Amino acid sequence: MRRLEGLITQLSRLPGIGKKSASRIAYWLLEADKNFVDSLSERLGEIRRHIVRCEECGNYSEADLCSICDSPRRVRDLMCIVEHSNDVATIESTGEFQGIYHVLHGVLSPLDGVGPEELGLAKIYARIQKQGVREVIVATNPTLEGDSTALYIAKQLANKGIRISRIATGIPVGGDMEYADKLSVARALRARQTI
Amino acid sequence: MRRLEGLITQLSRLPGIGKKSASRIAYWLLEADKNFVDSLSERLGEIRRHIVRCEECGNYSEADLCSICDSPRRVRDLMCIVEHSNDVATIESTGEFQGIYHVLHGVLSPLDGVGPEELGLAKIYARIQKQGVREVIVATNPTLEGDSTALYIAKQLANKGIRISRIATGIPVGGDMEYADKLSVARALRARQTI
Repeated sequence: MRRLEGLITQLSRLPGIGKKSASRIAYWLLEADKNFVDSLSERLGEIRRHIVRCEECGNYSEADLCSICDSPRRVRDLMCIVEHSNDVATIESTGEFQGIYHVLHGVLSPLDGVGPEELGLAKIYARIQKQGVREVIVATNPTLEGDSTALYIAKQLANKGIRISRIATGIPVGGDMEYADKLSVARALRARQTI
Repeated sequence: MRRLEGLITQLSRLPGIGKKSASRIAYWLLEADKNFVDSLSERLGEIRRHIVRCEECGNYSEADLCSICDSPRRVRDLMCIVEHSNDVATIESTGEFQGIYHVLHGVLSPLDGVGPEELGLAKIYARIQKQGVREVIVATNPTLEGDSTALYIAKQLANKGIRISRIATGIPVGGDMEYADKLSVARALRARQTI
């Protein structure tokens, strides 16, 4: 069945979905409630038309300005820089952060042709000045690329009277030293805090 | 974002997809190639219109008669009864079976209101006679429901001159006794074969 195989191939391109899961989903869809499948298809088709990037911070939004940039309750002088839109959702779910965001939609990765220009890093300072930001938290992932990006941003903002910090790395809460990788343990030791 | 959350909720209804995977897929789709997303949406919407159940064996098919029932090369006197359409794909991938299939689209499950009537078990014998089937392999899963269904079918076909068999259960190839469950080991012992 050409069509079913086509659907399986497409589904297996989704992140975290292998050939086997894709096949399982495809057969499941054939047996599923028709209204559900139609509505899923419709929503998939329209999601890109209705969701745009916030013109202020780059976060995905249904309006030109996202609900965070638009909120009068957010602290404007604290900015958190993240790699992707879902990182905003993750941080928001903690309820720990009251500032505004800046979404890079990537990290510096010269081999993939992603330089400061592609990430719009030059524009960050303009936005920081405009919003009157006094503290920047760089929350890119603690990977080689995420760290380089953080370092680049820190250099750009040096000597401008802005406090720059980086999210802490270490052993995850509930984690086990035994299973942690060497680098995380090393960083956790270096970043030890007085109790 | 109401729409994005709606999509995440829908995606998390798919089999094997939790809230976290659904969110990852949804954000990935926002960044993915627009043509890919459009084509996925389209194919999802039309798959149900173009794929029907084979009027002979019940397998999913793009035509009224599936490619297996339609093939002159298949052996007609050997029939394999399976639970679902994807089981046909699994067995076909082994290249071990040259007969025809019968897809039940479920198993006997009185608690869920699935009885012999719902599975069309009464019609199997008519089909067996029509096709001149002499051997039936019942390949429902080795679960409580799959076994009961196999037993029910075997009783229905008893004393009719048809050879009825059940797929073997045991330790999977490449598996390890140490990690196999007690029932599989017990069945593997009982079904031991002379070498």
